[in-house]
Amino acid sequence: MTAPTRSTLALDIGGTKLAVGVVAPDGSVHGLRVIPTDKHEGPDAVLARLFAAGHLAIAEAGHDVGAVGISCGGPLDADTGVVMRPLNLPDWDDVPVGPLAAREFGVPAHLVNDATAGMLGEAASGAAVGARNAIYLTLSTGVGGGAVLNGLPHRGAAGNGGEFGHVMVRPFGRRCTCGRLGCLEAYASGTSIAARARDAVASATEPTVLAALDTVRAEDVVAAADAGDPLARRIWDETLDVIGQAVTDLVNTFEPDVVVLGGGVTRSGGELFDRVRRTIDATAMAPAAAAVRLERAALAPYECLVGAAVHAVTRIEETTHV
Amino acid sequence: MTAPTRSTLALDIGGTKLAVGVVAPDGSVHGLRVIPTDKHEGPDAVLARLFAAGHLAIAEAGHDVGAVGISCGGPLDADTGVVMRPLNLPDWDDVPVGPLAAREFGVPAHLVNDATAGMLGEAASGAAVGARNAIYLTLSTGVGGGAVLNGLPHRGAAGNGGEFGHVMVRPFGRRCTCGRLGCLEAYASGTSIAARARDAVASATEPTVLAALDTVRAEDVVAAADAGDPLARRIWDETLDVIGQAVTDLVNTFEPDVVVLGGGVTRSGGELFDRVRRTIDATAMAPAAAAVRLERAALAPYECLVGAAVHAVTRIEETTHV
Repeated sequence: MTAPTRSTLALDIGGTKLAVGVVAPDGSVHGLRVIPTDKHEGPDAVLARLFAAGHLAIAEAGHDVGAVGISCGGPLDADTGVVMRPLNLPDWDDVPVGPLAAREFGVPAHLVNDATAGMLGEAASGAAVGARNAIYLTLSTGVGGGAVLNGLPHRGAAGNGGEFGHVMVRPFGRRCTCGRLGCLEAYASGTSIAARARDAVASATEPTVLAALDTVRAEDVVAAADAGDPLARRIWDETLDVIGQAVTDLVNTFEPDVVVLGGGVTRSGGELFDRVRRTIDATAMAPAAAAVRLERAALAPYECLVGAAVHAVTRIEETTHV
Repeated sequence: MTAPTRSTLALDIGGTKLAVGVVAPDGSVHGLRVIPTDKHEGPDAVLARLFAAGHLAIAEAGHDVGAVGISCGGPLDADTGVVMRPLNLPDWDDVPVGPLAAREFGVPAHLVNDATAGMLGEAASGAAVGARNAIYLTLSTGVGGGAVLNGLPHRGAAGNGGEFGHVMVRPFGRRCTCGRLGCLEAYASGTSIAARARDAVASATEPTVLAALDTVRAEDVVAAADAGDPLARRIWDETLDVIGQAVTDLVNTFEPDVVVLGGGVTRSGGELFDRVRRTIDATAMAPAAAAVRLERAALAPYECLVGAAVHAVTRIEETTHV
């Protein structure tokens, strides 16, 4: 593998935010901009704004761009660059984002699952550098995951590289966006934390500061829990329990060197990492618990952006030099 | 990798049975013998009988044996050959099985987690030949798992290669041998199926054919469920539910090409495979479900024996030729 000499335009399509930047060969990000997804506008309008932001980023960075890397929630087809109705972008029904970006920017474009991208970014220049087996879990609008296994990015038979948001944490529990009952994502995504709090407020017989808010967001739940609000505390405790439980399952399943946690929910307070670490130590198989590091995403919140660029460069090298 | 020219003595130490055989370079098993573990006799007596059976197997096979491969339940230290108190052999407290076998047979001996061995056997000459990503789950006295990831046997940071028996299927549920509540092993091992049935019989207010048995075994539960006994049906249905749930979690997590199921519980009736397949198709992420094959262990019940030999030969090649 030769070091790339040109930069890569990286586009990260989230359910809430679009992030755009030019990633230099050394991993530094230039011309960064973050704008709301406004997903109700539909894929055409969102992509038009995403691409416009991409052109602005290139102009601002002043770099020669040789490729576009795009990260988006799955399911998607990484080979064809088609986004297949992600759970958090339900209107995006077979949208050929990769080919559209290639045409728009006149260079090869490669699409990758956003959590796979997060893992690639952290493995390339973040908290998982050098790890033989690493797990990345992002707790964001949705919950996603990626892995490096035996030293290689894990793609999986369907190319989505593992869907850690869809492990069951509460059998017969809340309905997940995937249709199954009780998935991690139905409890631990920012969306689900807020929804669970709103449901609890609606049926609460006790006073809660959350009742005064027009719209309860995940960060409101964490802040109210920290301030001692009992209802918010119960919701946040249950959230920390299921995250700890799911991470412990992943530690037992993979025996990774490192688990990297990213996404907005992990930036809501230090308590999360302490609780997850304690749950691993108390309930995982002892050798696996002793062997694993638990780390915050070092490139947060731009690990997916960096990883999308890493993915594009890697794919182009594979097709050019192999 | 050059093909080995000598055969390998393979020893499989189970919680219920000891299996011994000479595995030829072509994967065929010779001089096979299976004897009860009688684990209450303690490690010294069990190992004496195991090694005696090994000598008989070598004599019967008449092969030149160049190595010993040993599979045993984890946790264990594959590098030093020490068995570290497996959950199903609680008296085996840091027993140096590898060095003891090497001294006994005068050739190099290598120890491997039994489920890792099962995976290696199935990948070498069973249901997972050629798979880039494969998962093996054994439902036996305990529940174990192994994986081939990115084309390589997965060892994991602690060398146990993944403990699929210790994913949580019923939060706040039955106490597992590992100490955690609600693990797959606490529901789906043969031991746990029998224990759950005995508990249900003890508190049953309805008639059940299981009440007439001195000792209820897992296979009695399956037979009674097949015959329409309502209590046995409930126990077996719950067992099939948790197995389907756990396999679906593994399918979402790994996106494997193939899931191989082995162990005595899987030999109890065809219904198990049908139910697990239906659960995957109904509840796993659609691309992962579409991409995965579900297969019975093709070398059953000797996949661990074959895999222990594969492991020993591989380790010796690594240390000799690298």
